[in-house]
Amino acid sequence: MMKYIDGGVCAAKGFLASGIHCGIRKNRDKRDLSLIYSEKQCSAAAVYTQNLVKGAPIEVTRDNISDGYARAVICNSGNANTCNANGREVAEDTCRILADKLGISPKDVVVASTGVIGLPLDITPIAEGIPALISELSENGCDNAAEGIMTTDTKKKEVAVEFEAGGAVCRIGGIAKGSGMIHPNMATMLVFITTDAAVSPDMLKKALSGDIRKTFNMLSIDGDTSTNDMVAVLANGMAGNPMIAEEDEDYRRFAEALNAVTVALCRMIAADGEGATKLLECRVTGAGTESAAKQVAKSVICSSLLKAAMFGADANWGRVLCAIGYSGAAVDVDTIGVSFRSRAGEIEVCRNGAGVGFSEELAKTILLEDEIEILVDLGAGGYSAVAWGCDLTYDYVKINGDYRT
Amino acid sequence: MMKYIDGGVCAAKGFLASGIHCGIRKNRDKRDLSLIYSEKQCSAAAVYTQNLVKGAPIEVTRDNISDGYARAVICNSGNANTCNANGREVAEDTCRILADKLGISPKDVVVASTGVIGLPLDITPIAEGIPALISELSENGCDNAAEGIMTTDTKKKEVAVEFEAGGAVCRIGGIAKGSGMIHPNMATMLVFITTDAAVSPDMLKKALSGDIRKTFNMLSIDGDTSTNDMVAVLANGMAGNPMIAEEDEDYRRFAEALNAVTVALCRMIAADGEGATKLLECRVTGAGTESAAKQVAKSVICSSLLKAAMFGADANWGRVLCAIGYSGAAVDVDTIGVSFRSRAGEIEVCRNGAGVGFSEELAKTILLEDEIEILVDLGAGGYSAVAWGCDLTYDYVKINGDYRT
Repeated sequence: MMKYIDGGVCAAKGFLASGIHCGIRKNRDKRDLSLIYSEKQCSAAAVYTQNLVKGAPIEVTRDNISDGYARAVICNSGNANTCNANGREVAEDTCRILADKLGISPKDVVVASTGVIGLPLDITPIAEGIPALISELSENGCDNAAEGIMTTDTKKKEVAVEFEAGGAVCRIGGIAKGSGMIHPNMATMLVFITTDAAVSPDMLKKALSGDIRKTFNMLSIDGDTSTNDMVAVLANGMAGNPMIAEEDEDYRRFAEALNAVTVALCRMIAADGEGATKLLECRVTGAGTESAAKQVAKSVICSSLLKAAMFGADANWGRVLCAIGYSGAAVDVDTIGVSFRSRAGEIEVCRNGAGVGFSEELAKTILLEDEIEILVDLGAGGYSAVAWGCDLTYDYVKINGDYRT
Repeated sequence: MMKYIDGGVCAAKGFLASGIHCGIRKNRDKRDLSLIYSEKQCSAAAVYTQNLVKGAPIEVTRDNISDGYARAVICNSGNANTCNANGREVAEDTCRILADKLGISPKDVVVASTGVIGLPLDITPIAEGIPALISELSENGCDNAAEGIMTTDTKKKEVAVEFEAGGAVCRIGGIAKGSGMIHPNMATMLVFITTDAAVSPDMLKKALSGDIRKTFNMLSIDGDTSTNDMVAVLANGMAGNPMIAEEDEDYRRFAEALNAVTVALCRMIAADGEGATKLLECRVTGAGTESAAKQVAKSVICSSLLKAAMFGADANWGRVLCAIGYSGAAVDVDTIGVSFRSRAGEIEVCRNGAGVGFSEELAKTILLEDEIEILVDLGAGGYSAVAWGCDLTYDYVKINGDYRT
């Protein structure tokens, strides 16, 4: 049985974390450097942004974990270490300095950065901060680590679950940062997940690659694919379960637990999107193919017009139909149904591609809640998908329109 | 020699226009029904939205001009006649009633609608308004016709040019509506163009199809492809030039004049996008292929983050790089250069994929203007493209977030 537990990335046995202010940011009250460390070597897997403009840390991490193993994650906020001249050098130096102090190989370090792009990143505060970062490592360090990777996030994002594999109790947990920066720039998502389950590098990679297609790839705050996105998972095997090395029942349980963590983080990221007042969840059913389901769900969640309507609690279902129509999926308009649902109730607004009479008052009551489900039934088959997003608000414009100072 | 002239859709010989308030809208001060009529039969061509959810008038118009000829354009605002039960019937009835009164064939009518979707459209005000619409037809009617198709547009959009073909002076002009509605819904673009040049249906279609790939398809206000977009061209041959029936020098002149009209309308539509305070024009040069140039230009113009930065007059070039990186075009990041330009000057902000030192003060002065060019040099080849858009503002959220009342 799976259950939610406390601890985030420190919930899994043998993982320690810390977060400090090292001086990349001017605001001394904001932590800007985080570390996650495992007492034992870990299987490691990661997925990265598809943006051709990539942060230097992405390339370094990709090289480092190409052998399928890692031991530590270091991440700074305040500077994305992207589109500058010394990016690769600074990322490599960070790994080397950290590895020296930890007594591990630099090739076992996952390095990440988030913040403004196009500025040189000075290694000095990082190098000077690493001893303190290591000395503060603790089983209770997840909160500080989660804070150290935040930019304009308004809430720390951490989650963990406990599950069983091969007769052993295992744990998996993660932290995430969502969209925005103190110098507003581009939404860069970072997710670090730890587990004490024993999972082979291959199976870890398979589980992660399969999972993100239904989770992080179905998340959008503003349609801008970042240069620095990264989701990394470390599995240290300290739960004592037999190594998961094939797609057996234990693998299925692990994948399910991973999904519980990633879906929870997706929801947290969407709900805390820049300027957001509402979490939007588009649930598509009745699709003829899985890809049609996904295309439709993602198209709806990305529509600026629908996002603005949701901010205004306006049951403007024509915008849902419009977004379905341009999604690229082959749909039959005449079989589409749309409903809105929240804690306040559920209301059908469109059936067979045309409007149905509905109470605008009830619709508004439903849409005034802060978690809204947009239910789309394509009436064509048995496939379904979910996508997450948020409303488009004045504050999104404010956060991203303010002059960098 | 080509030159701009007055008159819009009535600049070309033999074209009359009118616009009235027939009662689709409650506000009696707003015209909601427009007519364009040619004294002689016209070659006709049109292009339509790619959205699978299509307004009923789109289907009817497509059928009507499948033979390559038309004589009149009728368009209402206030109701998109889309996703309702009686859409096709109302669109066909509109053509029939108008054709009866004009003494032409219903198959020679281009019909279009724009406004809120999902509501039944009542034929009564249209049927009752048609006699007045016809009696008001005039060579000076373009202003009224341009107003009759407006929704939340804040400015009428009309343009005309004079050019020479086959020794005859010809004229071509157009009107357009941009994005938004009084009941905010989805951006629906309509463009009607008239010319007195003699052009065969095939050549008209070819010229239009070729042109929109570089004009209207390179325009974005908010990324939402409407259900009702239409660009239609009518050519009545009254200028007396020899029929343009092949891709000769006259065809080239006609295509050039058409492009002058469509680019001008694109710029007007972008500048008057919902809530917009600035026209953005992204000029990409040095691309390895034409499609790469277009993908990059359009990706930049569609980035919510860049649009918000432009609203804030923030020279946040990292967002330009980011949008180039996820455009889907194969680009070499290390050869990209970016500059911003306006009436106030030009400033280079990125060279070879990395930031260059620049005066933030000068950048802000440049970006405070209301027409901004974002110049991207990909440093890879000889292809170029231009895309048009606008900034993302508080008013966009306000217009589209307000509850429908």
